[in-house]
Amino acid sequence: MDLGMTERVRPLIEQVRQMVETEIAPLDREYHEEVGRHPSGDRFRMTDRQLEILNSLKATAKERGLWNFWLTDSEKGFGLTTVEYAYLAEEMGKVGIAAEVFNCNAPDTGNMEVLERYGTEAHKEKWLKPLLRGDIRSAYLMTEPDVASSDATNIALTAVRDGDAWVLNGDKWWATGAGDPRCALYIVMAATDPDAHKHSRHSMFLIPADAEGIEVLRPMHVFGADDAPHGHMHIRFTNVRVPQEDLVLGEGRGFEVAQGRLGPGRIHHCMRAIGQAEKALELLCKRAMGREAFGKKLMDLGANYDIIANARMEIEMARLLCLKAAWVMDTQGTRAAQPWISQIKVVAPLTALKVVDEAMQVHGAAGISQDFPLAAMWTHLRTLRFADGPDAVHRRQVARTELRKYSNGKL
Amino acid sequence: MDLGMTERVRPLIEQVRQMVETEIAPLDREYHEEVGRHPSGDRFRMTDRQLEILNSLKATAKERGLWNFWLTDSEKGFGLTTVEYAYLAEEMGKVGIAAEVFNCNAPDTGNMEVLERYGTEAHKEKWLKPLLRGDIRSAYLMTEPDVASSDATNIALTAVRDGDAWVLNGDKWWATGAGDPRCALYIVMAATDPDAHKHSRHSMFLIPADAEGIEVLRPMHVFGADDAPHGHMHIRFTNVRVPQEDLVLGEGRGFEVAQGRLGPGRIHHCMRAIGQAEKALELLCKRAMGREAFGKKLMDLGANYDIIANARMEIEMARLLCLKAAWVMDTQGTRAAQPWISQIKVVAPLTALKVVDEAMQVHGAAGISQDFPLAAMWTHLRTLRFADGPDAVHRRQVARTELRKYSNGKL
Amino acid sequence: MDLGMTERVRPLIEQVRQMVETEIAPLDREYHEEVGRHPSGDRFRMTDRQLEILNSLKATAKERGLWNFWLTDSEKGFGLTTVEYAYLAEEMGKVGIAAEVFNCNAPDTGNMEVLERYGTEAHKEKWLKPLLRGDIRSAYLMTEPDVASSDATNIALTAVRDGDAWVLNGDKWWATGAGDPRCALYIVMAATDPDAHKHSRHSMFLIPADAEGIEVLRPMHVFGADDAPHGHMHIRFTNVRVPQEDLVLGEGRGFEVAQGRLGPGRIHHCMRAIGQAEKALELLCKRAMGREAFGKKLMDLGANYDIIANARMEIEMARLLCLKAAWVMDTQGTRAAQPWISQIKVVAPLTALKVVDEAMQVHGAAGISQDFPLAAMWTHLRTLRFADGPDAVHRRQVARTELRKYSNGKL
Amino acid sequence: MDLGMTERVRPLIEQVRQMVETEIAPLDREYHEEVGRHPSGDRFRMTDRQLEILNSLKATAKERGLWNFWLTDSEKGFGLTTVEYAYLAEEMGKVGIAAEVFNCNAPDTGNMEVLERYGTEAHKEKWLKPLLRGDIRSAYLMTEPDVASSDATNIALTAVRDGDAWVLNGDKWWATGAGDPRCALYIVMAATDPDAHKHSRHSMFLIPADAEGIEVLRPMHVFGADDAPHGHMHIRFTNVRVPQEDLVLGEGRGFEVAQGRLGPGRIHHCMRAIGQAEKALELLCKRAMGREAFGKKLMDLGANYDIIANARMEIEMARLLCLKAAWVMDTQGTRAAQPWISQIKVVAPLTALKVVDEAMQVHGAAGISQDFPLAAMWTHLRTLRFADGPDAVHRRQVARTELRKYSNGKL
Repeated sequence: MDLGMTERVRPLIEQVRQMVETEIAPLDREYHEEVGRHPSGDRFRMTDRQLEILNSLKATAKERGLWNFWLTDSEKGFGLTTVEYAYLAEEMGKVGIAAEVFNCNAPDTGNMEVLERYGTEAHKEKWLKPLLRGDIRSAYLMTEPDVASSDATNIALTAVRDGDAWVLNGDKWWATGAGDPRCALYIVMAATDPDAHKHSRHSMFLIPADAEGIEVLRPMHVFGADDAPHGHMHIRFTNVRVPQEDLVLGEGRGFEVAQGRLGPGRIHHCMRAIGQAEKALELLCKRAMGREAFGKKLMDLGANYDIIANARMEIEMARLLCLKAAWVMDTQGTRAAQPWISQIKVVAPLTALKVVDEAMQVHGAAGISQDFPLAAMWTHLRTLRFADGPDAVHRRQVARTELRKYSNGKL
Repeated sequence: MDLGMTERVRPLIEQVRQMVETEIAPLDREYHEEVGRHPSGDRFRMTDRQLEILNSLKATAKERGLWNFWLTDSEKGFGLTTVEYAYLAEEMGKVGIAAEVFNCNAPDTGNMEVLERYGTEAHKEKWLKPLLRGDIRSAYLMTEPDVASSDATNIALTAVRDGDAWVLNGDKWWATGAGDPRCALYIVMAATDPDAHKHSRHSMFLIPADAEGIEVLRPMHVFGADDAPHGHMHIRFTNVRVPQEDLVLGEGRGFEVAQGRLGPGRIHHCMRAIGQAEKALELLCKRAMGREAFGKKLMDLGANYDIIANARMEIEMARLLCLKAAWVMDTQGTRAAQPWISQIKVVAPLTALKVVDEAMQVHGAAGISQDFPLAAMWTHLRTLRFADGPDAVHRRQVARTELRKYSNGKL
Repeated sequence: MDLGMTERVRPLIEQVRQMVETEIAPLDREYHEEVGRHPSGDRFRMTDRQLEILNSLKATAKERGLWNFWLTDSEKGFGLTTVEYAYLAEEMGKVGIAAEVFNCNAPDTGNMEVLERYGTEAHKEKWLKPLLRGDIRSAYLMTEPDVASSDATNIALTAVRDGDAWVLNGDKWWATGAGDPRCALYIVMAATDPDAHKHSRHSMFLIPADAEGIEVLRPMHVFGADDAPHGHMHIRFTNVRVPQEDLVLGEGRGFEVAQGRLGPGRIHHCMRAIGQAEKALELLCKRAMGREAFGKKLMDLGANYDIIANARMEIEMARLLCLKAAWVMDTQGTRAAQPWISQIKVVAPLTALKVVDEAMQVHGAAGISQDFPLAAMWTHLRTLRFADGPDAVHRRQVARTELRKYSNGKL
Repeated sequence: MDLGMTERVRPLIEQVRQMVETEIAPLDREYHEEVGRHPSGDRFRMTDRQLEILNSLKATAKERGLWNFWLTDSEKGFGLTTVEYAYLAEEMGKVGIAAEVFNCNAPDTGNMEVLERYGTEAHKEKWLKPLLRGDIRSAYLMTEPDVASSDATNIALTAVRDGDAWVLNGDKWWATGAGDPRCALYIVMAATDPDAHKHSRHSMFLIPADAEGIEVLRPMHVFGADDAPHGHMHIRFTNVRVPQEDLVLGEGRGFEVAQGRLGPGRIHHCMRAIGQAEKALELLCKRAMGREAFGKKLMDLGANYDIIANARMEIEMARLLCLKAAWVMDTQGTRAAQPWISQIKVVAPLTALKVVDEAMQVHGAAGISQDFPLAAMWTHLRTLRFADGPDAVHRRQVARTELRKYSNGKL
């Protein structure tokens, strides 16, 4: 069970770390300050400067070959293992726009995985290639406002067959990235046969973002912020027609696609969360050493020693668990990795949230402001406790796996 | 130690509760949706509709005599005790704009208290009267970006005597309410004699918001939101002249004023936090009973029974502690109440944050969106862990009080 | 809602506190060191010195009129309210044998309450009078080894009618106090009609400890200790005959008796737990001020300030909640008090356990040894998380009460 | 960073696991029930049956070559790595007497390590050989009653030179295993030069348990239990003479010896704690599936799913951290492993305590009784939060290591 960095990935990690720290981080703040400055007043349009920052960084990354290394199980990528990629994801998690710079950002990586694994040649030509080049972006439309989407069998947006096409009607929300003007593709889960067995009711569709009948109603706010220009959009489908050939893998196989998509993506999310926890602990320590109150350094006040020690221990443990989940996926496959992924899906965001919260507290009110990246980390991490399944659902899976050991596998 | 509702306050509470639920709550959401819709594009200007909502509700409240009952120790108010007012604060905490509707909102109540206790007749005429009428608003400028302001002796904005005036230079931030176009008065703490004993270094000034040399640099963001039009502003003073008569109480007595201001205000904050916790628990229960997943109601899944029970127990305990702090203040005075206030300043926001967090989780992603008041509650409550002293400082006070019992009062 | 000490109870509290501190505490340690020194080698026989200590202290208490003040709702006692008694219970909780010295110890108080409320004149004459005098002791036999007794409808020891008597067969365990050589009475719950409605299946019997067919199998160990000479005994009933007149209140009314018994007793337990938490915090502070390591006092190391502050806050809150439960019982009766009692039954032991645990840690290994009362407090408090219903059952009650608010009382 | 089981250790683990489960576990309970049955009444003498159980199991283990595999860095043992041994320690932790059966029990393993690393040939001949054979046992005398021994520079038992010998005076306590009648050797830390630099004040001595002037005062109780016949003894030294040749390594080098002794031993303790946590979780699950209340299996009540899931996640993480600490020790040495060992010293006992506590709760009162191994696990694990340094000291080390990253190594 080798959870360490391999020799071949070590120089890649070093390059990525360097670029994140010295080239991306300084521009990340400027990028975010640009939000809302488009002359139109539309927060979901990017300014020239924003595009310039992103495009030049992406060009640099591509030039250096630091591009698309998330494709862990494919000839198209670096052929990295999930464990190897995990270390890279940690580095990319430390700064907001870093993942996109290396074309490794969610939800595009998961979406590309869908196209790579389940797409036809036509799908790959039309959507995968420009995504792999970083020319367009994509969104994944799953969650709905009117049902408890944590139980995906509740998904209710309907797709009704009409000749050689499907007609979709209903609402999706929390479509992350769908606000981005570059977002060209939606991958959409819809109920094609509500009377079928609960895991065969749904199908997955590829739909151009500008298809007729699609209306972006509003950005969902995350603790009051709209995450522009990326966004998490509420989208309405009114008689949207999708040709049969854009139904992925086959009718009634939406669940299969959704499951296949989720495994590695959750590990990536978790490792980026570890990266944020590390960054937050660094900021905490530096602030605690750099400010004074009541005649002492902050680090010597209150419970700060214990807070720092607990953060260090919890980060180490959460990282090791993520690496183990990655290793199980590499060596035993996605199915065997499921309960491990459920574990890290609970643990990694909670751990990172706790560290970030303590770091904010040590910073005083500055910690929750735009002057430090902590608040943005926190709100993002908080969304991870819902994304790809809320904690309660994952805990349930872990418990069932445990109890099954003592029930001859039944439960 | 009577911590219950008195007979005289019970009907008041009932009136306030009714008005909050049936008249204010429905408009509160509309009020917040109006933010940013001023034709100028300036988020810190209020739309006509916003002003209409606020003014009509305020007029109604005033008409019914539900006005200024925060003035707990004065002939000008209702003559309520702090315990009595605490129950009212709980009700007003449940909806965002409610406190202002009854002219009981922070920081104005604390500022009015300063004027009432320490102001001259001229100060009262000029500032207190319009504040009591709800015609203007005010801000309190204490915290600074460059020092650990949790130790108030660090406050560094300078005031230098020049003839019969003082000249102020420096930065303040997190001036809550200073973004509001109706905000006319700043109460400002400045260092008038840095070489004096640490509790005599500072003085408190009354300064018109439009005084020359004052520049509002930017709104501080709270988890990405600007809290417009209220705001928490970063303000720069450049050679701002303040006449000697607007120095409150006397040179070097800034600490005394600050201390006197804080006691009741912290209790009000805490009781409003209890109100938010109650509201969040109500929303949690309703959602848990109203949605289904995996063939069960949410309430029957996961640890929701325990979560609800723990929330109930923790809210009850936190409320009782707040009421006890209020009772100590009523019966033994501000000084005796200090360690009790430190206790609730730690406990009430933490308790409420935990309940709100659980409520958000039960709501799924909707819980952190603009569709429910939970996210706004959470970010507001999170700021309370800094406002008027961070948790660590209050815990320190509580521990010292405890240890002093065994050290002949020395420590 | 007056939760304070009344004027009439204040001098009583002062007398009890004084006696506990100056007269009982010094002998308590000697009493416990005597355990196991009976010449017979039988740990469940008391030495002469043990009896001398107990009897002389009891005589003193009785002489001073500090006796039986637990009888909160009766002409036989002081006529104290539950709130008044709660403060006394807190003081008596601070030292192991104190409650017995004032004839206020569990399970005798609960048992006396059963006799007082539900007993016949004959029962009172035979059992209540000597118990009120402190001449004998009693046990309450409820829990059984083979069923989840947290659901009392599971209780399975059988009582079968045979002429004008009942014949009992089965096992009971955790019969606290049944090891005491002075224990003369068992109050026993048995299933008299397993086919009846679940709340009418059981009846309550009064049985002399020396009845034929009763066998004390063994003391149950609490974390390895046998709590001699008091003990928690495992007892077997083999064809034990009980005359009809010793069935309390009526056939099938065992539940009613059990419920009536529990209310005040749980409040007493909880307030004694608060007393232990206070004692532990005192010991913690003194140790933290009295020892040095790494050149500092322990109090200035680690997170001790925060630990002390948190302990103080949590004790205050738990106490207030207990007092509120007592007040509800006094003013609205046992039924209304149920959800409040469930709340404190969870909160008070957990709070006290946490404080005691921290106190042990500050004491180093001494803290878990016989040299300090902390370990005994801890193991005793840990049993309270089972006694009279485990935490999970009480949390369930609290949650159901909460949810019922939003379901028209149904659930 | 290979943290997995190696191929060579896998069959060893299987053999140990089998023997623990099928041969040792059934006798373990009988062994413990025998405590106190020696005809003399002396709980610290072993009955014939106890010796028979131990000796026959030990003979079997030795015969199968399952012996002394703790010697991780020596030709005398199996040459296992620390990681390899860690997995074995986990298995041995699951049953009370298992470690001794394989001659891998504390404190003997640490003591043998001292003799192996720092002892002279004479020391090895006299003490190491019989220890390696399992013929005698040994104790390690460090902690003292009158000083905060968490700071080892406080150690105060004096050794004064007198000719070619040293004369020792003072008290030691918590000498684990010193109650065992087979305990023949004490390794004792004493202050030989109180005026020297704080890390050169002490020396380490080898002293026969029956040396003149040694008096075993009493067993220290652990939550009321005396842990007979092993025990944790309070021992007094009165003019005990030790020849110069039994001072280990050199005068003033006691710290060096103590440090060298601690590393692997702490890892072993922690991995045994993980074994206990696993055992407790197994018991919890089985009980939760096997009992019913309120018409449901316990597993379907309360928060049991979450409790089980959290236990699984926390055990996995704690184990991985222990394995990483072991791996650092194997690959980078004891010094580099120190902060990692501090981390697991905090984490492993806390994790295991939490799981055991939850398991006890699910068992009802049975969980804290002699009928299940949980209570003994709990009290043992609780002592680990003091043994080899309390949590606070280890957290301090972890925090200092962290802060040093940002202070050019100074702190």
